[in-house]
Amino acid sequence: MRPRVGVWLFGARGSVATTTVAGAAALAHGAPPAGVVTAQPAFAGAGLAPIESLVFGGHDVIDTPLAKQVERLIAGGVLPAGLNALITAELAAAERNLVVLPVAATQAEAIRRMAEDLRAFRLRNDLDHVVAINVASTEPPAEVGFTELPELRAALDAGTPLPASCAAALAAFEAGASFIDFTPSTSIRPPVIREWAVERGLPFGGQDAKTGETLVKTVLAPMFTARSLPVHAWSGTNLLGGGDGATLADPRAAESKNVSKERGLSDLLGPDVAGQVHIDYVDPLGDWKTAWDHVLFSGFLGVRMTLQFTWQGCDSALAAPLVLDLARLSALALQRGHVGSMPFLGFYFKDPVDSTEHSLTVQYDELVKWVQAC
Amino acid sequence: MRPRVGVWLFGARGSVATTTVAGAAALAHGAPPAGVVTAQPAFAGAGLAPIESLVFGGHDVIDTPLAKQVERLIAGGVLPAGLNALITAELAAAERNLVVLPVAATQAEAIRRMAEDLRAFRLRNDLDHVVAINVASTEPPAEVGFTELPELRAALDAGTPLPASCAAALAAFEAGASFIDFTPSTSIRPPVIREWAVERGLPFGGQDAKTGETLVKTVLAPMFTARSLPVHAWSGTNLLGGGDGATLADPRAAESKNVSKERGLSDLLGPDVAGQVHIDYVDPLGDWKTAWDHVLFSGFLGVRMTLQFTWQGCDSALAAPLVLDLARLSALALQRGHVGSMPFLGFYFKDPVDSTEHSLTVQYDELVKWVQAC
Amino acid sequence: MRPRVGVWLFGARGSVATTTVAGAAALAHGAPPAGVVTAQPAFAGAGLAPIESLVFGGHDVIDTPLAKQVERLIAGGVLPAGLNALITAELAAAERNLVVLPVAATQAEAIRRMAEDLRAFRLRNDLDHVVAINVASTEPPAEVGFTELPELRAALDAGTPLPASCAAALAAFEAGASFIDFTPSTSIRPPVIREWAVERGLPFGGQDAKTGETLVKTVLAPMFTARSLPVHAWSGTNLLGGGDGATLADPRAAESKNVSKERGLSDLLGPDVAGQVHIDYVDPLGDWKTAWDHVLFSGFLGVRMTLQFTWQGCDSALAAPLVLDLARLSALALQRGHVGSMPFLGFYFKDPVDSTEHSLTVQYDELVKWVQAC
Amino acid sequence: MRPRVGVWLFGARGSVATTTVAGAAALAHGAPPAGVVTAQPAFAGAGLAPIESLVFGGHDVIDTPLAKQVERLIAGGVLPAGLNALITAELAAAERNLVVLPVAATQAEAIRRMAEDLRAFRLRNDLDHVVAINVASTEPPAEVGFTELPELRAALDAGTPLPASCAAALAAFEAGASFIDFTPSTSIRPPVIREWAVERGLPFGGQDAKTGETLVKTVLAPMFTARSLPVHAWSGTNLLGGGDGATLADPRAAESKNVSKERGLSDLLGPDVAGQVHIDYVDPLGDWKTAWDHVLFSGFLGVRMTLQFTWQGCDSALAAPLVLDLARLSALALQRGHVGSMPFLGFYFKDPVDSTEHSLTVQYDELVKWVQAC
Repeated sequence: MRPRVGVWLFGARGSVATTTVAGAAALAHGAPPAGVVTAQPAFAGAGLAPIESLVFGGHDVIDTPLAKQVERLIAGGVLPAGLNALITAELAAAERNLVVLPVAATQAEAIRRMAEDLRAFRLRNDLDHVVAINVASTEPPAEVGFTELPELRAALDAGTPLPASCAAALAAFEAGASFIDFTPSTSIRPPVIREWAVERGLPFGGQDAKTGETLVKTVLAPMFTARSLPVHAWSGTNLLGGGDGATLADPRAAESKNVSKERGLSDLLGPDVAGQVHIDYVDPLGDWKTAWDHVLFSGFLGVRMTLQFTWQGCDSALAAPLVLDLARLSALALQRGHVGSMPFLGFYFKDPVDSTEHSLTVQYDELVKWVQAC
Repeated sequence: MRPRVGVWLFGARGSVATTTVAGAAALAHGAPPAGVVTAQPAFAGAGLAPIESLVFGGHDVIDTPLAKQVERLIAGGVLPAGLNALITAELAAAERNLVVLPVAATQAEAIRRMAEDLRAFRLRNDLDHVVAINVASTEPPAEVGFTELPELRAALDAGTPLPASCAAALAAFEAGASFIDFTPSTSIRPPVIREWAVERGLPFGGQDAKTGETLVKTVLAPMFTARSLPVHAWSGTNLLGGGDGATLADPRAAESKNVSKERGLSDLLGPDVAGQVHIDYVDPLGDWKTAWDHVLFSGFLGVRMTLQFTWQGCDSALAAPLVLDLARLSALALQRGHVGSMPFLGFYFKDPVDSTEHSLTVQYDELVKWVQAC
Repeated sequence: MRPRVGVWLFGARGSVATTTVAGAAALAHGAPPAGVVTAQPAFAGAGLAPIESLVFGGHDVIDTPLAKQVERLIAGGVLPAGLNALITAELAAAERNLVVLPVAATQAEAIRRMAEDLRAFRLRNDLDHVVAINVASTEPPAEVGFTELPELRAALDAGTPLPASCAAALAAFEAGASFIDFTPSTSIRPPVIREWAVERGLPFGGQDAKTGETLVKTVLAPMFTARSLPVHAWSGTNLLGGGDGATLADPRAAESKNVSKERGLSDLLGPDVAGQVHIDYVDPLGDWKTAWDHVLFSGFLGVRMTLQFTWQGCDSALAAPLVLDLARLSALALQRGHVGSMPFLGFYFKDPVDSTEHSLTVQYDELVKWVQAC
Repeated sequence: MRPRVGVWLFGARGSVATTTVAGAAALAHGAPPAGVVTAQPAFAGAGLAPIESLVFGGHDVIDTPLAKQVERLIAGGVLPAGLNALITAELAAAERNLVVLPVAATQAEAIRRMAEDLRAFRLRNDLDHVVAINVASTEPPAEVGFTELPELRAALDAGTPLPASCAAALAAFEAGASFIDFTPSTSIRPPVIREWAVERGLPFGGQDAKTGETLVKTVLAPMFTARSLPVHAWSGTNLLGGGDGATLADPRAAESKNVSKERGLSDLLGPDVAGQVHIDYVDPLGDWKTAWDHVLFSGFLGVRMTLQFTWQGCDSALAAPLVLDLARLSALALQRGHVGSMPFLGFYFKDPVDSTEHSLTVQYDELVKWVQAC
């Protein structure tokens, strides 16, 4: 019998999470799995949990009903008209598993209560594995000044605060769940947090899903390299509305994003490429995103040429099938007893944990290889 | 001692050939090898002929001096100002090896005289190997109605005409040279022509170098496939001036080009993708080319998204370093006694001989693997 | 008391007509008049018929209910979700005025019966003026070989066929209605048809509404002229789906469109501008349209520069408010007793009747001047 | 006899100034006046000084010979190859009139010496009128805290510093020259500086020449207004290299530019349009500039649409003919005794002095009307 898998979403009422839950339900009703990579034949024999068997739960700071969020996404053209009527039962089932993020006197206490919520989710739904995925708003970058586990534990008990994403990761590990960060937040960046996962014998992965502009960059940059065409400048402007846009209008949160975004390019093309990346909040764009990139390169004997591209996409609709992929893949890793970072998931991320490989094709091959070895 | 390699260009006074000859000379004077793939470290140990040792010759229907063509390309921004003064000696040396395309009563006779020109080139320059590359204007598509070698030979003797590109290929084979078609012309498409090469124990390859729009397409299309994003329509418009543009303003020649261009896309994405490709002659663009592509795809649950790109490049400056690569690589194949088609050169072509692989990354890996095996 | 105005649409169940009828109803329910030029303060004092007072009717070859068409347009994102429920009464009212295009033995007979339909519409709805607007599919170009009215009448009686758009125009004139061609079809192009209108004392106008790419062209081209920047080439590609796209996939219909589209550019920039315009049918685009234009121009001392633009719009949503404008404006002309062509409506058309002015700003000023003189 | 006109350039060895001087010389040798608006027939009868009769001089902080700057601009593709040889005499003549910007203990003293340089230029070249134009690098915004002329004079004598552009304007006025600011620097912004010009009976104008992105904006924005299409967001990214780019890489100088750039849009479309404008320094672009603009607007019933454009131009080649225009036009104003601001020059500027009109077509009409009235 297939193991039962639960998916715990931090930020469970946001656009990405709502699209994920609604989309899984739509697939169960026969919608084609566009954008779901693990639905490809290459992934068929590995025993991945069927999408329609996934059980969803999660934390959020807000309590707007999922059904309301689905309506909002339908109005914004993200989800198809009429979907809400079709998936009422599935939304209600997920709704019962959503919990308001606990507020506690110390973060040690908050982590304990969050872990308790995850354990309750597992028991109530009779789950074999729980995989946690952070799809909450991007935080500003933060330093965690501890390098040893005992030191971190003592500090937590003493009331020292950690970024919320770190607390989420620790709560997942305490509850025996894997943890994936879909955002560029701090979460599993500090080595001491990763150590905690290893101590508990659990896998983790991330960070910052590549869904749009960076996805295109990581196939175009290797093209220039393969053809020995020197790239002199790569400039980009991202226009986005919605909640994600509003968060990134805070320059400190945008900084997290930009660091992630630019890492790939310099790993792929070297450090001498000029150009900046802008992230602009354009409220009337709603859930949509437009990116324009301008690449200045030269051909034979230095003659200057350019490539420009414009990407117009809906982030939630690009992200949600990847969340489903990552849930299935990390459940497989859990089941196989994988401990520590999962660099073979680099295909999904702008800033892959423990990997410097950014070429999408190479990353795809690595992913398929790992799955087929399972 | 390294073998001496001669490069015979059909269309030897055109923009691509002139840029190739001038560029090889510029590299010998220390210009960096931008765009030359075989200058990458991965190709270092295979004993490829050094670019500065290549000897150039060729046929053309016109007799404008190479030095004049170089001046024209400098004025058009294709070659750097001042280059002519630096490479006078190299241009003069190549000039001595250029021959006007013979006109004969029958094509059998023309082929004999062309082959004689190649043999004279070899003797005069004391060459170990001669590699022939067709960089002449694109011809309209043509059928060659023979399937057996004796039948073809009899027809040629009887005065039946063949497309000029076929005659060029046969002349190369008669002179013991390999043959590569950089264009989409008929040349080595007919199986009977390929048989001729095999009978003579020679390698051949092509067709239709991918230098711009198609290059980008063959990295973007696999991205959509890898991410399971269905592509509904892919439309493209190519604006080009210069000699190539004027040739392609003839709808019959454009047809050859379009067939090549579209083959890759349907091999990569399947046959159900809507959209057309246009090639427009825009005289004032000179040697420059602009391509705009519009891709309509969908994400999760069918939501429609688009990717557009604009490529602005100089075809000759993109093509010339690939001609140098292909000269070096086919000389290596000749030296190793390779007989028949060279599918491992698919990296360079829109319509690779004997290959259905169009993904640039996979093609690159295949190329490197072959070279390193040598 | 304000005169009662009826709007007769040829092609009354198509996307443009449906959006017009549904949109007028939406405005009556308080939707803001985006895209309705005559809602601007400059048009306030001229006694234009209020949009909510317009009565709609028309001919079509199909009989799909308007309400069904509205649903299709909602699904395609052209009309807002939920609009159908709001405007049921208005749709039903218009539905009662829609008539299947009569099929008759001779076109003389067809014209008589069509005119009868218009007269019945006027009587039944107690209208003071009826204005007819052709929003049917674009026809291929056609020659009408008559130059004198008696000759044309004799030919019609003898059973000679005319293009359907000419028959529509004549039916309108026979019924005492003005006629506007929103398309590039033949309709009022032949001088003899215009003479007929004059004989009946009626106004007419057109042709080929400028809603997208051409709209942008007619503000950009005067910019280059005002700044003395020579334009060398202007190339364009239009991708469109839906019914309009399917019609224009017929190269003969596309020819009508292209002639209209290119007239403005050569009137504005002179005849020496290189470049082609393509219209591609891309079925998956539905009611949406994307146009890409590439302009090659030069600055001081001949240095080459480019301007590119991409327009992504929904044709029906751009066209419908202009249909409302033209209905109101031609009702005013009728009421004022204007006879013959209406060149002051050039602001709305790619190929304005009896005008060589294409600059949008100048056209706007001419329109406002005429209205304010009324 | 035509009056002799001298053109004094602040920033006389920069790219714009060099292109202006070289271009005027090229026109004298028969180059066509592309980009020179005053060469249009509409300007023919007003008695404007012929371009070939203009005498150039100016201040700069550097002393690189003009001929060297011309070579640099030829290498960068801004000026045509071979021009330097043709115009040696004209460059030498201008070189003799170039002066290093004086450095003095107080700015009162510097202004006196600068004015002395202008007077010497007039005497030495036997000029009837001198027109001064500021084409120096853009300064950061600055406040000038004086509102009365005597107060300002006292402060200057007391050693209080002013922005360099204000000093330049005052020096021009002291020497009886008109002053135009081609940049967004402080110069004539403070009312007290304008008062000084009026006291001396002189005309002034500016600011911030519209040569590229803003030029296009000021024809597109009125299009949306004329068609009643609500614009929700207008976002722009400008990539530029060269000296101008390096200056604007300083965020404080970029601020001056941005304020100018955005003023037009809000005057044309109102204050409620979202979106940001970025100016990025991309060194490898050299003298070239690329701008991408993204406009989000809606049509009928709120359906969202977009217009994007990419402008690729060479700023100096766009600016130089406008400098020639402004020299001729302000000489005419001087000659006619015009005193104070010249709002009829708004056609040339992003931030026109004493005008809120930004529509290019209206501005053009105002310019022609003024010239023809002269």
